[in-house]
Amino acid sequence: MDNSVTLKMIQEAREALKGIAEVTPIVTSTRLGKNLFIKSENLQKTGSFKIRGAYNKIRMLSPEEAKRGVIACSAGNHAQGVALSATRLGIRSVICMPEGAPILKVEATRGYGAEVVLVPGIYDDAAREAKRLADEEGFTFAHPFNDPYVIAGQGTIGLEILEQVPDVEQIVVPIGGGGLISGVAAAVKSMRPNVKVIGVQAATVPSMFVSMRSGEIITVRDGATIADGIHVLTPGDLTFRMVKDYVDDIVTVSEDEIAAAIVALLEGPKTVAEGAGATSVAAYLFNRVDTSLNTVALVSGGNVDITTLSRIITKGMQKTGRIVRLTTKLIDKAGNLAQLVACVAECGANILDIEHEREDAKTEVNSCVVTMTLETRDEAHIRKIRESLVSHGYRLIE
Amino acid sequence: MDNSVTLKMIQEAREALKGIAEVTPIVTSTRLGKNLFIKSENLQKTGSFKIRGAYNKIRMLSPEEAKRGVIACSAGNHAQGVALSATRLGIRSVICMPEGAPILKVEATRGYGAEVVLVPGIYDDAAREAKRLADEEGFTFAHPFNDPYVIAGQGTIGLEILEQVPDVEQIVVPIGGGGLISGVAAAVKSMRPNVKVIGVQAATVPSMFVSMRSGEIITVRDGATIADGIHVLTPGDLTFRMVKDYVDDIVTVSEDEIAAAIVALLEGPKTVAEGAGATSVAAYLFNRVDTSLNTVALVSGGNVDITTLSRIITKGMQKTGRIVRLTTKLIDKAGNLAQLVACVAECGANILDIEHEREDAKTEVNSCVVTMTLETRDEAHIRKIRESLVSHGYRLIE
Repeated sequence: MDNSVTLKMIQEAREALKGIAEVTPIVTSTRLGKNLFIKSENLQKTGSFKIRGAYNKIRMLSPEEAKRGVIACSAGNHAQGVALSATRLGIRSVICMPEGAPILKVEATRGYGAEVVLVPGIYDDAAREAKRLADEEGFTFAHPFNDPYVIAGQGTIGLEILEQVPDVEQIVVPIGGGGLISGVAAAVKSMRPNVKVIGVQAATVPSMFVSMRSGEIITVRDGATIADGIHVLTPGDLTFRMVKDYVDDIVTVSEDEIAAAIVALLEGPKTVAEGAGATSVAAYLFNRVDTSLNTVALVSGGNVDITTLSRIITKGMQKTGRIVRLTTKLIDKAGNLAQLVACVAECGANILDIEHEREDAKTEVNSCVVTMTLETRDEAHIRKIRESLVSHGYRLIE
Repeated sequence: MDNSVTLKMIQEAREALKGIAEVTPIVTSTRLGKNLFIKSENLQKTGSFKIRGAYNKIRMLSPEEAKRGVIACSAGNHAQGVALSATRLGIRSVICMPEGAPILKVEATRGYGAEVVLVPGIYDDAAREAKRLADEEGFTFAHPFNDPYVIAGQGTIGLEILEQVPDVEQIVVPIGGGGLISGVAAAVKSMRPNVKVIGVQAATVPSMFVSMRSGEIITVRDGATIADGIHVLTPGDLTFRMVKDYVDDIVTVSEDEIAAAIVALLEGPKTVAEGAGATSVAAYLFNRVDTSLNTVALVSGGNVDITTLSRIITKGMQKTGRIVRLTTKLIDKAGNLAQLVACVAECGANILDIEHEREDAKTEVNSCVVTMTLETRDEAHIRKIRESLVSHGYRLIE
């Protein structure tokens, strides 16, 4: 089977996706960067780009395959993309998910019309079950990335970017399995070979990054990341080949940098990105790419669990010096706490929270430990506050 | 002086605002409602609609007035609107803010080119100082809402809505001082008198609501609200008159409902609204308006402090039954906690956090208090969990 993804396939996918996927807007924000353009696939139907590839795959099924239905394994965006696409085409879809999948992802996937099978165990167990059901019951297995029609569907984003930002010089794209960047790069390099295409991975799960550096497909050790949408340990063979052929470079970003990018997107363009989606913006904000170029950062999705979002905000604010926790020891005497607070206020920081701990194995008699959470401007502001406290005789702990 | 705001003034404002203010997008989300359309002024320059009125006011200054500059009092969106508008027109702007204003609002306002004067005390002190400086130094005072040019500027949103959503039947608009709804209603009722215009206020600060019911301008007692953008205790006389003439009804929403609407906007259309901005969506989601009509909810701004946002998320999730804290007493014996956890898991709730408190005045010897934070689907799910725990012999505290 010829696996190559041609510009013609991508153009045909684009025709097919009319009325199904949105042409998502390009958003700018002077607070993020004058030459940064955000391609907002977080505003896509189902909250991520996945519907493009899934629909393009499922529409190509033979009438016989269509009658039997599709199956996929995912607890995330791919599940919703497959579910909605199948429903729109009047085809049955079954999604295997690990039993511990977030309630809302299960509900959302059912809401788009899929049957959800909750499989005991982890993702790998669910994937095995999906393949078993595909073999036994004749479902077509919809791979999340290593499929030419899926890749062609994702490539339609590349065509849109070239039209929406005609003077683009660089496109930054998150990489999990590599389907998204393979499609985008194939489209862009066919039409405007001088436009750079740069991939981004989470530093904790750098599978395609390491594979490219090694020249062969490598399975990386599992690592934790808030970018669950690109948490893939082994690149596909097709996507590996396409990334090698078309992508100029791959960079990585840290968890803190991803969190800071999510916060920056909330504050600047007022938009919600999930971890994976924000990696492209993180790469720009933390200078992993050439920021002098007109850059499109592809924000691939916005399906972040709302409790997670709340935790990420805290993390992101710490990273950018917008909040800080400082701990000091005080002699437990009237007026001492007031003096400390006055000293902080003088530096222009707002106290968000203060803990005053008297009885503890760590504290000596007559002394107490005070931990303050402060709202600050940036790292320089925090340094100034630390220096001022020290010069007033306070000893900062850690 | 004739204070009336005509359709012609609004149309002229629209011409003047080309290239200055964005035509903000209409956003939809099936998760919020099939016939709900969001007019996204949170995506406007400076993060709120205020630039429309401010620019339209400042552009009308005489050359003599322009030379002396403008002054305003605001710690919020009006400050940024005035600052950027004046800068774009090459005019000096001074903004008085109360000393305790959030660091980032001060920085943002300076960033748009204004001189910021931090006035000791509260908002009223800053307002007095602004008026004093206006008198003494000849600045033009830019009122945030009670001014025909300001109102005409805000009215441009009404013209945009009628074009962007031709089959609109109802427009829901947040009310603080009333400048925004006066402009929108004047525009809409001149062109399409059958389209309903409904105002929304925070139930804790219902100044225009109470004034309309009373038939005269009433100053309400101060109340707390997360919708700081519409925290106005006394309507203007001009806006009072226009609301009386043009607005069909005013409704109020609770703090919890506003928080829930902010969360719904983050999860559905993936967009960040501030408290004031989300009141219109809250009115729709909690059936304060006729939800059978094609409704445009005007989301007036997105400038919510990021630490506040994090707290609002928690509040909003509680309101919609998406998290719950349950406390029960256990005999402190091996296996008892495991049993409790198993019982919760059986109900399909995820445990986000668990506190296990042994020594406390409240607890008897040999017993302990367990507080669990659970991720749940909705209120019905919470009821089911409560019932199941009780039927297993657990006594829920409170």
